[in-house]
Amino acid sequence: MNREQLFKIIQKKKTFLCIGLDTDIKKIPKHLLTTDDPIFEFNKQIVDATHEVAAAYKPNLAFYESLGSKGWDSLEKTVNHIRSVTSDIFIIADAKRGDIGNTSALYARTFFETYDFDGVTLAPYMGFDTVSPFLDYNGRWSIILALTSNNSASDFQYIKCSEGEHLFENVLKTAQKWGTTDQIMFVVGATKAEALQEIRKVAPDNFLLVPGVGAQGGSLEEVAQYGMNDHCGLLVNSSRGIIFASTEKDFASVAKEKAVELQQQMEVYLKKFNLL
Amino acid sequence: MNREQLFKIIQKKKTFLCIGLDTDIKKIPKHLLTTDDPIFEFNKQIVDATHEVAAAYKPNLAFYESLGSKGWDSLEKTVNHIRSVTSDIFIIADAKRGDIGNTSALYARTFFETYDFDGVTLAPYMGFDTVSPFLDYNGRWSIILALTSNNSASDFQYIKCSEGEHLFENVLKTAQKWGTTDQIMFVVGATKAEALQEIRKVAPDNFLLVPGVGAQGGSLEEVAQYGMNDHCGLLVNSSRGIIFASTEKDFASVAKEKAVELQQQMEVYLKKFNLL
Repeated sequence: MNREQLFKIIQKKKTFLCIGLDTDIKKIPKHLLTTDDPIFEFNKQIVDATHEVAAAYKPNLAFYESLGSKGWDSLEKTVNHIRSVTSDIFIIADAKRGDIGNTSALYARTFFETYDFDGVTLAPYMGFDTVSPFLDYNGRWSIILALTSNNSASDFQYIKCSEGEHLFENVLKTAQKWGTTDQIMFVVGATKAEALQEIRKVAPDNFLLVPGVGAQGGSLEEVAQYGMNDHCGLLVNSSRGIIFASTEKDFASVAKEKAVELQQQMEVYLKKFNLL
Repeated sequence: MNREQLFKIIQKKKTFLCIGLDTDIKKIPKHLLTTDDPIFEFNKQIVDATHEVAAAYKPNLAFYESLGSKGWDSLEKTVNHIRSVTSDIFIIADAKRGDIGNTSALYARTFFETYDFDGVTLAPYMGFDTVSPFLDYNGRWSIILALTSNNSASDFQYIKCSEGEHLFENVLKTAQKWGTTDQIMFVVGATKAEALQEIRKVAPDNFLLVPGVGAQGGSLEEVAQYGMNDHCGLLVNSSRGIIFASTEKDFASVAKEKAVELQQQMEVYLKKFNLL
């Protein structure tokens, strides 16, 4: 999928919502625990209930890995299920991988061949070598951590480089040289919505994956105001605020309500910026 | 395992060799492909042949993940097999994870509870939040990327911060505040052996995991000369140079020869620095 096609999905579904499938076995409704594959069963019901109002899904790999090989089975079934119910969707492996050479190539093979993800989150610390093998896959995306939403993001991301810019700005500038806006997306935490203004000066055209709206406290209005570009340019993620809004038997329908709520707000912003 | 115990293993076995289990299904001897679990079968024979001359094993997770859930089974069996043949060993998950909060906690659970690893490699870009949950596990290690051995390490790791130091030096200084020398180890690429002098000024006591000796071109002599401290302070990794030295039926015995060769050189350096 290229940038134009992603934008078309956003326009068609009137949403730039990414639903984070942070499916914690300790938090899912108890009645699912007796099924064969509780993680998949939970995801399936969430996906069935929400796919019409979501532009993307983002399983965070930690939740699957922590269950060992069974978790990876659940992940594969989840990706395949999403593909089976809709073709208008972008699927992100929130893996935050960062390795080099043949190892990085294997991660690319994992997420783009073994599993059918559209994009993978990547850590930039080791530089271009980390991202390079992912760029060989046409239509797949490298989603590079730039400015994250956690407290200790300031430990390194806000370090001032000798050119006077912050490390995250350097990452944004450097990584744009690695690939096109059809290949490179950046992770930018929504708790720093004002920083989006600065980021848009440095990276006007790239899509931004914005976690941290909802449970982590970011404001959707500010994100839209400071972050949108002429291709929308945003995928805004919400995880717990949707998938664990209810932990009872009604979890899927409550998740749908929460997702629809966000979709409706997003539709307003898309119209406001003349993108529909 | 604490720093003292790791040093005791090194003294007892007269080696600070870490064998990288970068077990690529495309590179292992063809006759293993007909077995039930070729990856595990390969690792088992490598471990059986080399565990007496190795202080550590380091499976690189990419090679296992790329095979999906089957790969994770092979990984688990490998870790369990290593534990069954020797108690004098340090096992590293070369995962280069870097996430935050509950996600990072899940990664810690994965590697320290689901799997029985002694340490995990971690990317520092998101700061302390990435490492924090791993520190809650007594006797387990966070192995933080500082200066890596790849070409594009210079993209960010050599950026000059406004205090005049390189980013990797800042990482070394900052991360030492996060935990003790029983908890924090650093990854330092051996292709930069002279940089080890600088690194030892900033981090005199921490263990260093040094990849890049052998296939990636680093010199063991220089690494020992510039990197050793009074607890040895080094785990030097070799992967392909050992495990793929032969890709025929004799692969395990040839791997043993290569590992013994390195162990014997290491014994010389341990004696030279009065550590035996």
